[in-house]
Amino acid sequence: MLERIRIVLIGTSHPGNIGGVARAMHNMGLADLALVAPRCEVIAQESISRASGADHLLHQASVHATLEEAVADCTLAVGASARSRTLPWPMLSPRELADRLPAECQPEGALVALVFGREDSGLTNAELQRCHAHVHIPTNADFSSLNLAAAVQVLAYECRMAWLSQVDAPAVETNADDDLATHAELERYFEHLERTLIGIDFHDPDQPRQLMARLRRLYLRARPERMEMNILRGILSATEKAANSKPPKP
Amino acid sequence: MLERIRIVLIGTSHPGNIGGVARAMHNMGLADLALVAPRCEVIAQESISRASGADHLLHQASVHATLEEAVADCTLAVGASARSRTLPWPMLSPRELADRLPAECQPEGALVALVFGREDSGLTNAELQRCHAHVHIPTNADFSSLNLAAAVQVLAYECRMAWLSQVDAPAVETNADDDLATHAELERYFEHLERTLIGIDFHDPDQPRQLMARLRRLYLRARPERMEMNILRGILSATEKAANSKPPKP
Repeated sequence: MLERIRIVLIGTSHPGNIGGVARAMHNMGLADLALVAPRCEVIAQESISRASGADHLLHQASVHATLEEAVADCTLAVGASARSRTLPWPMLSPRELADRLPAECQPEGALVALVFGREDSGLTNAELQRCHAHVHIPTNADFSSLNLAAAVQVLAYECRMAWLSQVDAPAVETNADDDLATHAELERYFEHLERTLIGIDFHDPDQPRQLMARLRRLYLRARPERMEMNILRGILSATEKAANSKPPKP
Repeated sequence: MLERIRIVLIGTSHPGNIGGVARAMHNMGLADLALVAPRCEVIAQESISRASGADHLLHQASVHATLEEAVADCTLAVGASARSRTLPWPMLSPRELADRLPAECQPEGALVALVFGREDSGLTNAELQRCHAHVHIPTNADFSSLNLAAAVQVLAYECRMAWLSQVDAPAVETNADDDLATHAELERYFEHLERTLIGIDFHDPDQPRQLMARLRRLYLRARPERMEMNILRGILSATEKAANSKPPKP
């Protein structure tokens, strides 16, 4: 199970934090580290020192230009977030996330991404909206900003606890009768959806009014399977075909 | 409850770790820090920097010559420990400790100490034997040495979770920012959806192939809100409008 959990760090600016994350991961048995547009050296004296013997995770970490690239093959992406955002999103506590992990990690090809933002500003709304759900580590309301490595430590600890509870437990039954769509398949769907909505004059990108964010939230919440994704894309293609057959406007 | 929990650090040698502990404590709502024979400056540039705004915990920390002095007024002392020692001791997991904390903290005058050892060598056998019980954070067998601040972070997080489970169960946060759609609204949507799919030649009621059943399952799983339902119906209306503008078939 633990090998199907990826830690994704976006725009990290302190090598020491990357090293601290590597140590926390290795302590808890996680190994898959992905860095998105790091704003500092990954292999540096401070990162190696803070990794304290887990620096092989730094060397084998993947580096990506975008979040989409880092989670393209993931079947579930969960973003670490402070509490309320303008558009509410499915919100889990670390323990609720842990309760879901065994079933999420079980299917063939399953891969779970836990996504952490910048030290100073966290994840952007656009990044949060690419996640199926958000996880909020409960903190003191007066002092809520966790150190990055500390936040990873807490979630990695919950991952390990979930794994330990599974080791001798019977296999979990999953409801899905088909593979879940990957993140990349979902993103292709959202692109296709937006294009189609513009084509039928329902969506004006100059006046977006959170339309795409709301649709993302709805479909991500449903956790579409690959076959369902194919149906939805087929509907979009049929819509485009029907709309394009109409006579040009006078 | 949280004000009755003291974090005790013995023989810490890195100011950065003391600062990291202060930050982890303040994040989780703990404030009582006791230092036993620290082997470094407590108030130093690195400790203040790593405390990241929680340096008042450093200034108000008590400093003691011995563990006995630091926990003299405590009603329960729990030592953080690697697994087996020569002499077996009552051993708790962090979660078992958390389960006990509310009852332990309740009596008048109750005070719980969580005791952490040196970065390099942990607690001595003599120190461990001054604790009522030991707590072991489960770690990777090949890489079991947690950073001091990370270990405090995990236990402080469990303390906070135990406390949150005790305070009047806070109003459940709902993800919905709007009412859920009623059953009737959902049925109207499915009727509209089927009509539209027939109109754009995607769906043939004579060869249904479980299409509508699959779409029902997907949308029902998402538990759409009323506003989302309105968006989806708006998309259907725009689709019909775009499709109906096409010239009649020859």
